[in-house]
Amino acid sequence: MPNQLNDHIVKSYDDERSRLINEILRMGEMAAAQLESALDVVERRDDKAAERIIANDEAIDALEHEVSQDVMKLALRGPMARDLREILAALRIAADIERIGDYAANVAKRSTALNLAPPLPHTRGLTVLGQLAVRQVRDVLVAFRTNDAEAAQRVRDQDAEIDTVYTSLFRELLTYMMEDPRAITPSTHLLFMAKNIERIGDHATNIAENIWFLVHGDEALPPRDKRDETNTVS
Amino acid sequence: MPNQLNDHIVKSYDDERSRLINEILRMGEMAAAQLESALDVVERRDDKAAERIIANDEAIDALEHEVSQDVMKLALRGPMARDLREILAALRIAADIERIGDYAANVAKRSTALNLAPPLPHTRGLTVLGQLAVRQVRDVLVAFRTNDAEAAQRVRDQDAEIDTVYTSLFRELLTYMMEDPRAITPSTHLLFMAKNIERIGDHATNIAENIWFLVHGDEALPPRDKRDETNTVS
Repeated sequence: MPNQLNDHIVKSYDDERSRLINEILRMGEMAAAQLESALDVVERRDDKAAERIIANDEAIDALEHEVSQDVMKLALRGPMARDLREILAALRIAADIERIGDYAANVAKRSTALNLAPPLPHTRGLTVLGQLAVRQVRDVLVAFRTNDAEAAQRVRDQDAEIDTVYTSLFRELLTYMMEDPRAITPSTHLLFMAKNIERIGDHATNIAENIWFLVHGDEALPPRDKRDETNTVS
Repeated sequence: MPNQLNDHIVKSYDDERSRLINEILRMGEMAAAQLESALDVVERRDDKAAERIIANDEAIDALEHEVSQDVMKLALRGPMARDLREILAALRIAADIERIGDYAANVAKRSTALNLAPPLPHTRGLTVLGQLAVRQVRDVLVAFRTNDAEAAQRVRDQDAEIDTVYTSLFRELLTYMMEDPRAITPSTHLLFMAKNIERIGDHATNIAENIWFLVHGDEALPPRDKRDETNTVS
């Protein structure tokens, strides 16, 4: 094969690869921004803004579709070893980001139900939890952009903090419901919103594990404790 | 290339492909069986059996890892068109089954918290919901085994039934909590268990969509309404 043609093919793989990486980073930033907006909407009790967040989720879904197309194209070029791991990791990371977007939209959706009742003091706790999750998502995106498996591992370790805050919010909400039956319905929505955010942390962790896989292949990550302690709250 | 060698390579691709399909079917059946056992454990209030279900989840996770390895191996052979779609679909389907297994284990885990309080009448409703989800999972596995995109589409359409049953159970549980504050903690666990099962239905739907993709490529599935109506319960 003449060198020029070879160069052209290699360049074109790199171009398509950059396109894929950028799509994922854009998708991830959109999901993080959606979650930030959703938290804001909960605090401001703004139904109109909530509707916009719910509508925006489609753009993330559309990007996931593009990622999946681009992975197909790159796979047809017969990549080996690290390149192959990268596109398979990309496919899984895009699926995790799509779920993060869904959960953010869900927080916005439930906020409209929350706004039918008087404000609860616990929305503040939800914001704190949500901000931790926003940071996790942004940190894991940086780890992905810089191929930094150690940074990814730190994101994974930080998930324990989200779980702790989630569990304490869960307990508080239960106590509150017992004190005032009128708080039961809105508190239940808050419980589910908190759970959505805790799940976002789990998806950031999945992404971190995929970054580890794409950098180190099958070398195992150190085990770690899980996590949502509310399973056994009595 | 001599024909014999060519035959050998082709045969070997088919062998590895069958292995992959069988791993996914085994994984799927394990997840369906885990959910069945979890429902049984909820009814029988059997903590020991719940522990076994939680421990069994590791076997599903291990199979997902094998699937991911086998997808890598097959991808290195440079499959085209349908073969390539098949292995990418396999990777995503395995991730969905892994999540179904997690949710089933979660139902078992929460049942141990439920057993700390007197039995609630609503566990029966949870069983009904769970049986619908078990059927969805088994039906979508048959669609996968037989490459039947139309059967997959029917599974996807049936998800609405799960959503309806889930929404009505959600409303019942809220009413119950308002009537009796002592029911709040166990009912909250039941709410989350119901949500886990509703999510299993969503993952069966994802699998159905991946079957459609592997058979028909990018041809769009007809749109469909979503779904969890509890977001807006007031």
